Amino acid sequence: MQMPDKRNSGAGFCFVADIRDAVRAAAPRVHCITNSVAQNFTANVLLAAGGVPAMTIAAEEVADFVASSGAMLVNLGTLDRARREAIDISLEIATQYRVPWVLDPVFIERVPARGVFAKELMVHKPSAIRLNAAEFTALSGDDPVPERIARYARANGAVIALSGETDFVTDGDRHAAISNGHPLMASITATGCAASSLVAACIAVESDVWRATVAALTVFGIAGEVAAEAAQGPGSLAIGLIDALHAIDAKTIAARARVS
Amino acid sequence: MQMPDKRNSGAGFCFVADIRDAVRAAAPRVHCITNSVAQNFTANVLLAAGGVPAMTIAAEEVADFVASSGAMLVNLGTLDRARREAIDISLEIATQYRVPWVLDPVFIERVPARGVFAKELMVHKPSAIRLNAAEFTALSGDDPVPERIARYARANGAVIALSGETDFVTDGDRHAAISNGHPLMASITATGCAASSLVAACIAVESDVWRATVAALTVFGIAGEVAAEAAQGPGSLAIGLIDALHAIDAKTIAARARVS
Amino acid sequence: MQMPDKRNSGAGFCFVADIRDAVRAAAPRVHCITNSVAQNFTANVLLAAGGVPAMTIAAEEVADFVASSGAMLVNLGTLDRARREAIDISLEIATQYRVPWVLDPVFIERVPARGVFAKELMVHKPSAIRLNAAEFTALSGDDPVPERIARYARANGAVIALSGETDFVTDGDRHAAISNGHPLMASITATGCAASSLVAACIAVESDVWRATVAALTVFGIAGEVAAEAAQGPGSLAIGLIDALHAIDAKTIAARARVS
Repeated sequence: MQMPDKRNSGAGFCFVADIRDAVRAAAPRVHCITNSVAQNFTANVLLAAGGVPAMTIAAEEVADFVASSGAMLVNLGTLDRARREAIDISLEIATQYRVPWVLDPVFIERVPARGVFAKELMVHKPSAIRLNAAEFTALSGDDPVPERIARYARANGAVIALSGETDFVTDGDRHAAISNGHPLMASITATGCAASSLVAACIAVESDVWRATVAALTVFGIAGEVAAEAAQGPGSLAIGLIDALHAIDAKTIAARARVS
Repeated sequence: MQMPDKRNSGAGFCFVADIRDAVRAAAPRVHCITNSVAQNFTANVLLAAGGVPAMTIAAEEVADFVASSGAMLVNLGTLDRARREAIDISLEIATQYRVPWVLDPVFIERVPARGVFAKELMVHKPSAIRLNAAEFTALSGDDPVPERIARYARANGAVIALSGETDFVTDGDRHAAISNGHPLMASITATGCAASSLVAACIAVESDVWRATVAALTVFGIAGEVAAEAAQGPGSLAIGLIDALHAIDAKTIAARARVS
Repeated sequence: MQMPDKRNSGAGFCFVADIRDAVRAAAPRVHCITNSVAQNFTANVLLAAGGVPAMTIAAEEVADFVASSGAMLVNLGTLDRARREAIDISLEIATQYRVPWVLDPVFIERVPARGVFAKELMVHKPSAIRLNAAEFTALSGDDPVPERIARYARANGAVIALSGETDFVTDGDRHAAISNGHPLMASITATGCAASSLVAACIAVESDVWRATVAALTVFGIAGEVAAEAAQGPGSLAIGLIDALHAIDAKTIAARARVS
């Protein structure tokens, strides 16, 4: 049921709070191969949401961690040799142990080699891909418009979450537009990376990847909004976002979710 | 003298404030080979307490840093090849220059290879080891009960600090139970790693390693408690903990220490 | 015009606010090869000021990033093999694409090998060098007194910014002493590193490197001062500094700048 103010937290999207609660209840292990800038903030975002992060990129260690994780994040920021090697090992293990994983192809439009690497990773079937318009074009070779995004999602059996002023989430058949969030979030480093880790936490507890992705991005956006109301700037926003993510409950989600 | 509320900050533990003040006065250099997630928070914790952190893991550099440090931390998180190599070099230098060091064997129960590596490090005689129950079992092959922990401490000539709701610190002969801290501290990444770095700062200025370890963990726990009273969640708790660690004085320690 | 309280924000230094606004307007890309401890804070400082940070140190990636950047920072903290290699590649590209760069020779007095490396980098002509007295002596082999610093600046065609209670900035001919800042800033890790990144952001938009450097350090110092007035300790100071850097405007700069 759509409200006049475009908030849509009715019966159709009550799964958002359920998935958020499931993360808190299950405390899933999420292995993150992510860039060095994002590691600390990402770990704190996962802990605030109730997940258990691990971050090693050591070739000798990732297999043990991934095999015992509920989900994995592969973020292509600061993509050095160690990370490439860790990603290759991890994805073999993820396939073997059926660990779902999320791809965040950071800045692939700025480094051709990253783009090539990202495309190669598609063979390992990510459950979800979170990226912005420029990254989508670099990955798919196509325009970042809804029908093309849906086609790419169908062709790859992956949920695509295109970030922007409104986040667009599609599995090819079902679509959601999430209008939560706040512009100041773009002034904090690694917010996108951290949002992707929350998608991973949600797919660890919810097998419907589209619902899991919608839930993660809605909750993350609401936490940013709540934080922005009290923040003095991007520094206090980052801290407040973690606080809000820890505190967020079904009532706040119902009152604030803007998903259609 | 034990108070009815179990606070025990009497004559027996006044060394806690003395050691804390000694860190501030001496500004010891503490070299930390620690995981990439914990580096920034650990450096800020050490600076807030009055120490001077250095964090390089470059093989070409660690010898110079360790040789001129008052103490060292070896934390086994994100244990890649560079860190293994740096640890091996550092411990040779630490032995040669009599630099005391603290071992924090993060997650060794999740990666067998880390456990093997941790056991090998014991030959280099850590002054103190800070770990949780699962890590103690992985390291010692024994149950995490007081008498077994004391035995392991005696056998290895090391102070063992077992973290948990109550921290248990023993050198085999003397035991302390520290009840300071706050449950929400577990929702911040790297709090344990940072606490271990504070143990290192304290053993740099106090040769009685048991006292130094008790002091570090009591001060860290109190700082967390003070911060928790004003925090809105784990984000503001992490910030408040650093503020409290910087501000903490003998009076606050006397009023809040719960050590027995 | 010099005010009795030594504030000097008159006609002579109105370029500070102009350069700060130019960074916000141009959103320059700043590639940072910096130490692992400083990466997150540095990225947040750059974003707060309006820049676009990138931080990869991967040998395969730095060339693409540097070639499309407005300026670069080379910080010698945690100087491992990967960083040395990345710096060598980056500086070749910076020369080729005329990307101006800032050198921050962290702790070169503690590791002779870093000092040797820093001196070798001088052939690549940094636009500006930000360092403290001990680092200046290690780099130049000379005393950190104004005339010697000015001579070194002239000889190397670089602006030298010597940090301290008062920052001294010279290109050999023009000198500025900046008294902004707060002592508590020294209790936050990576404040110096982050200040250097802001110098890089400013030289990306202002070809007069001396002016750009003075602007960056004045703005950074003022942001620290503003934050210190509300901070409870170094934790909240770091957050407040980022907030203040985002909010700072020409009026605040005019009211608070202490440059002579």
